Amino acid sequence: MTEIEIGRGKRARTAYGLDDVDIVPTRRTRDPEVVSVHWQIDAYRFDIPILAAPMDSVVSPATAIAIGRLGGLGVLNLEGLWTRYDDPAPLLARIAELPPGDVTPTLQQLYAEPIREELIKARIAEIRDGGVTVAAALSPARTAQFAQTVVDAGVDLFVIRGTTVSAQHVSPAGAPEPLNLKDFIYQLDVPVVVGGCASYQAALHLMRTGAAGVLVGFGGGAAHTTRDVLGIRVPMASAIADVAAARRDYLDESGGRYVHVIADGSVGRSGDVPKAIACGADAVMLGSPLARATDAPGRGTHWGIEAVHSELPRGDRVVLGTVGTTEQILLGPSRTADGTMNLVGALRRAMATTGYSDLKEFQRVEVVVDTSR
Amino acid sequence: MTEIEIGRGKRARTAYGLDDVDIVPTRRTRDPEVVSVHWQIDAYRFDIPILAAPMDSVVSPATAIAIGRLGGLGVLNLEGLWTRYDDPAPLLARIAELPPGDVTPTLQQLYAEPIREELIKARIAEIRDGGVTVAAALSPARTAQFAQTVVDAGVDLFVIRGTTVSAQHVSPAGAPEPLNLKDFIYQLDVPVVVGGCASYQAALHLMRTGAAGVLVGFGGGAAHTTRDVLGIRVPMASAIADVAAARRDYLDESGGRYVHVIADGSVGRSGDVPKAIACGADAVMLGSPLARATDAPGRGTHWGIEAVHSELPRGDRVVLGTVGTTEQILLGPSRTADGTMNLVGALRRAMATTGYSDLKEFQRVEVVVDTSR
Amino acid sequence: MTEIEIGRGKRARTAYGLDDVDIVPTRRTRDPEVVSVHWQIDAYRFDIPILAAPMDSVVSPATAIAIGRLGGLGVLNLEGLWTRYDDPAPLLARIAELPPGDVTPTLQQLYAEPIREELIKARIAEIRDGGVTVAAALSPARTAQFAQTVVDAGVDLFVIRGTTVSAQHVSPAGAPEPLNLKDFIYQLDVPVVVGGCASYQAALHLMRTGAAGVLVGFGGGAAHTTRDVLGIRVPMASAIADVAAARRDYLDESGGRYVHVIADGSVGRSGDVPKAIACGADAVMLGSPLARATDAPGRGTHWGIEAVHSELPRGDRVVLGTVGTTEQILLGPSRTADGTMNLVGALRRAMATTGYSDLKEFQRVEVVVDTSR
Amino acid sequence: MTEIEIGRGKRARTAYGLDDVDIVPTRRTRDPEVVSVHWQIDAYRFDIPILAAPMDSVVSPATAIAIGRLGGLGVLNLEGLWTRYDDPAPLLARIAELPPGDVTPTLQQLYAEPIREELIKARIAEIRDGGVTVAAALSPARTAQFAQTVVDAGVDLFVIRGTTVSAQHVSPAGAPEPLNLKDFIYQLDVPVVVGGCASYQAALHLMRTGAAGVLVGFGGGAAHTTRDVLGIRVPMASAIADVAAARRDYLDESGGRYVHVIADGSVGRSGDVPKAIACGADAVMLGSPLARATDAPGRGTHWGIEAVHSELPRGDRVVLGTVGTTEQILLGPSRTADGTMNLVGALRRAMATTGYSDLKEFQRVEVVVDTSR
Repeated sequence: MTEIEIGRGKRARTAYGLDDVDIVPTRRTRDPEVVSVHWQIDAYRFDIPILAAPMDSVVSPATAIAIGRLGGLGVLNLEGLWTRYDDPAPLLARIAELPPGDVTPTLQQLYAEPIREELIKARIAEIRDGGVTVAAALSPARTAQFAQTVVDAGVDLFVIRGTTVSAQHVSPAGAPEPLNLKDFIYQLDVPVVVGGCASYQAALHLMRTGAAGVLVGFGGGAAHTTRDVLGIRVPMASAIADVAAARRDYLDESGGRYVHVIADGSVGRSGDVPKAIACGADAVMLGSPLARATDAPGRGTHWGIEAVHSELPRGDRVVLGTVGTTEQILLGPSRTADGTMNLVGALRRAMATTGYSDLKEFQRVEVVVDTSR
Repeated sequence: MTEIEIGRGKRARTAYGLDDVDIVPTRRTRDPEVVSVHWQIDAYRFDIPILAAPMDSVVSPATAIAIGRLGGLGVLNLEGLWTRYDDPAPLLARIAELPPGDVTPTLQQLYAEPIREELIKARIAEIRDGGVTVAAALSPARTAQFAQTVVDAGVDLFVIRGTTVSAQHVSPAGAPEPLNLKDFIYQLDVPVVVGGCASYQAALHLMRTGAAGVLVGFGGGAAHTTRDVLGIRVPMASAIADVAAARRDYLDESGGRYVHVIADGSVGRSGDVPKAIACGADAVMLGSPLARATDAPGRGTHWGIEAVHSELPRGDRVVLGTVGTTEQILLGPSRTADGTMNLVGALRRAMATTGYSDLKEFQRVEVVVDTSR
Repeated sequence: MTEIEIGRGKRARTAYGLDDVDIVPTRRTRDPEVVSVHWQIDAYRFDIPILAAPMDSVVSPATAIAIGRLGGLGVLNLEGLWTRYDDPAPLLARIAELPPGDVTPTLQQLYAEPIREELIKARIAEIRDGGVTVAAALSPARTAQFAQTVVDAGVDLFVIRGTTVSAQHVSPAGAPEPLNLKDFIYQLDVPVVVGGCASYQAALHLMRTGAAGVLVGFGGGAAHTTRDVLGIRVPMASAIADVAAARRDYLDESGGRYVHVIADGSVGRSGDVPKAIACGADAVMLGSPLARATDAPGRGTHWGIEAVHSELPRGDRVVLGTVGTTEQILLGPSRTADGTMNLVGALRRAMATTGYSDLKEFQRVEVVVDTSR
Repeated sequence: MTEIEIGRGKRARTAYGLDDVDIVPTRRTRDPEVVSVHWQIDAYRFDIPILAAPMDSVVSPATAIAIGRLGGLGVLNLEGLWTRYDDPAPLLARIAELPPGDVTPTLQQLYAEPIREELIKARIAEIRDGGVTVAAALSPARTAQFAQTVVDAGVDLFVIRGTTVSAQHVSPAGAPEPLNLKDFIYQLDVPVVVGGCASYQAALHLMRTGAAGVLVGFGGGAAHTTRDVLGIRVPMASAIADVAAARRDYLDESGGRYVHVIADGSVGRSGDVPKAIACGADAVMLGSPLARATDAPGRGTHWGIEAVHSELPRGDRVVLGTVGTTEQILLGPSRTADGTMNLVGALRRAMATTGYSDLKEFQRVEVVVDTSR
């Protein structure tokens, strides 16, 4: 990033979002059919480089199975309604219908219900019975408490996800010892994906904990207001490019460990998927695009775990509407021209149109910063 | 373009659209009457440097003739309604009246009808009988199949136009051999215009195929959503300037072949025509400005061939309304002050006001990047 | 201006508008009462550095007198309704009431009426009888024809004003010899103000014709669409700064001739007046701010001479509404906080707040480019 | 700030607002509970680094006491309604209900009432009786007249606040001697906070007068139109960074005097508080966020002292609505996700999330310039 002077006492780099950049075709083109978009992390191979974000509006046990069968990976939020209530269906229906002024207090109240271990087990078992790779997410604060239950229940990929997750968390004296990520990951039998992070240094330290993948981003999603509330944000294109540089340097430093970079948030339309990869991502974690599915739990509405905080909510429930099934959104065919359907077809075509045949090569495609938007 | 760092792992140049730039007058002025705006490509001379884009809302055989008689060149889309149906008139009327939600599925269905060779012949013959230069367009995928028919039918200028056309297309093993542009153009008896392209390298390789002209751009037009769907775009001012540099370098490399640079898309108001030329274009290909003609086939609505894709539509039907006849839009007089009428009069006056007397000289006029919009 | 590369084939400088810049206070402040805002051009001294633009919505003989008595200078357009009709009052009323769709054709028709020499004489005489400095404007194309009449009628300051006026105008062979500005100004007995221009070179050449002042700008006014129609524009802050540099260099080259730089257009709110002077202007020519006067001829509507062109209108009639009398707009007191009233009071306070006591010094005040708007 | 050329005759630095910057997390995180946000100026210690601006819509004697008890500091405007009227309550109610067109004239009339010394004494006594630190503000023009009354009444912190306050004010010959800030502050028994200022030089000179703190900013607040009316502004992020550099240099020059930098204006949402501190502020002075309190005197409306100027009003009464009590706005819990509640909780969390434990350290947190907004 180019560094400028904000004032005599402060310097800053300039950072760019996915909407600031465009992909530039090269002198070569391909047929979309010869393009591969498969992605592999640890022992798990996926036909498409798309993860569904652990948000109650996006991933239920049923949609986790459906997305897995379509070639992607649905990540269940283990601190959401599915582990607090026996039957979240009526609550999801109620949230979708709430008038705007009632949303935040109602979410705060619904998510105040305690998390139940037996529901964690049941939900993971349900996904496992669906025959797909099982991934589930906890926040750093609750990871120590529930991790063993989660592993015992048979999770394949363990996701630790918070607004910001660091390799070095400081707690007050006398408080319970905070999660030591490095020890935790070392002792765990399953691969761990951890984030968000958004800078070279933060990512490098997360990589050193032994994580198989890092989530890039915070505060950029359609339903988040982290920037307004906390002032914290790193525009996604720059965040990915910084973290991808950490991946490269850590690959060298570790003598060959390739830590996957997963863009989490700010990927709103199909064109953002190739842009994220062009900036250096290996895969993308989607929220709002999948919340538009007719079979998504949010019924056309969307919110994240930040929205339910009891003291400082940092997200809202947004109304997106629906455009088609999860399958149509991921694999097409598309019946609209606005980038909400056939995300994988769009990725294939973007790669074909610019002459690339696999995701790793496509990270090198030229981009421009577009001032004309 | 100025290169900046998006993040540690990615660099990019900054790119500008026509709306980002302004033309700066010099110390000299002229009368508009002494300004020449004629343009010549291969053996064909045109009074005005304006091509009508091969879009069904803009070019029918009748409007191709009308535009030719006004001094320009209408390019017929040979994969549109005119080569799929005996009488597209009722379909055009229907498309113009479609409610927004029905547009994409209806276009997908209407354009699923097969292309008929005898209609290709008939449409070209009809334009030829109008006594004007005949130009018609195919996509790269269909060029091999229909090219001989087109040439035999008597086309003067052959246009190969796709979202991105490259000199080197890779197809899957076992698939039919892709179009080898260089061989194809070499064997063809008529001059070929080919595109879109948007970068120096891509344009240079297209020029080396023997094309008489290249189309600059993709995804910038009023009816396209390529940027949203694929993430691909190069803002037009920068794209033209890059391709114009390729023209200059190829002129040297080839010992004197001047390949014409035609800006295709993003030219929405009369002021964009001189801007495109100021950035280095020899001529402009217009869509939406001509779709506003009372005699245009689209009846005040406008869509491109990208909008009809069966799996991944990348354009919409936009409603523009009408402002006057094709003649009034091209040659005036204007009855509005919004840049929608008398495009050629505006070009003449822009050149006169800045002291230039022909298009080639005018490519050197000073421009500024305007931060005040 | 900082030069950047638009693409390989084109470079450009970055240009800034008045809205892009802010004035920065220094370490000193003053009382507004000790600030002088007087301005002198040739033998004529004005209490306030404000000219009213030669537009029919702003300057009638009556308002020219009123503005003169308030310390400014009203410039009458000699090609407007006042020199085409005995009594423009009913036409002005009609224009103010026109529905939007009828404006351009009606203006084209009303201004097609011929200009009458006896009305030129009568209007100038009327202003002269008001006891104020008399200034009147012609376009370059009509200057030769009517100049003697204007001078004989007793004008004090002669204004030649067009979209772009150059020192070197080229006409077709066989056409009447174009106006040679240098000869014309040399032979004229009264000082000449000429423009618009917007670049260092163009301004320097205009200064060399012997003009007492140059008008900076074109296409920036509230009622103009020159940028949309012709693609021509230079943002005002950069234009003023460039022309002010020409003033300084010409002062040296000529051994002491100080040519006044008058910002014409883009000065919409009171805060734009000190900004224009901060960028290097000696005075400002106002349109829309004065058209908001209850006693302005436009009755709360506003249009320029560009709007009436028979072939290529480049402006519209805009509806501004009224805020107070011309006196209140210029000298206050203000009853609104939006920068539409007490323009001179605002200028005084801006100078006082930043510690400056006269206009010439104030041209040195620090400005910043403001990215936060 | 990066310097660019506006035109040949003028250079400028680029300046950034709080909305242009984002805070970037580091590789470390903390619990919000271990974060300290206390602030101390002179002998006065505050639990939270928040001052309430001396605006009648924000600070009454009652709210000054309430804010003081919550750990902040309410500054009473001694030139507002509370020192002109025995009972401002009905006037505040009336202002809140005024239709837009009547606001400015009514404010001008209400604030034309004379200031009464006995009311100054009474208001200060009332706050003092509340058991909190007492702070009150005068403009530079009235400081000499009322200062002794204010000090005698028992103010703890004396605030001199104007659009721009300089260390060197020039008055007309024959006028009363202007306030000599340095002498005044030297002789005063209480610490003085003075501003606004917005540049390194201006701030450095104010620091040399002996002030305990300087206010950064003018024209940036929600209810101000200084930029539109006067053309004067410095975007807040750059202003703070410049003044923070002056603090550092003055600390060295003075052999250890630390002058507090207080951002005044442009802090509209909770995320702006950590941003202001990240740019170098020690504390923030809030207007509109506190005017949204149900117990604020403005009843959901908001205006500043600039809005009441008799000749040149430079602010408006804006309607903000209410979101909760002053306590909820400052300390939470929040019931909205838009950054209007729990400002201190948001500051704590922003610091915790980026790994900082006190305000002084947090001034070093990395920020980026965000082009993606």
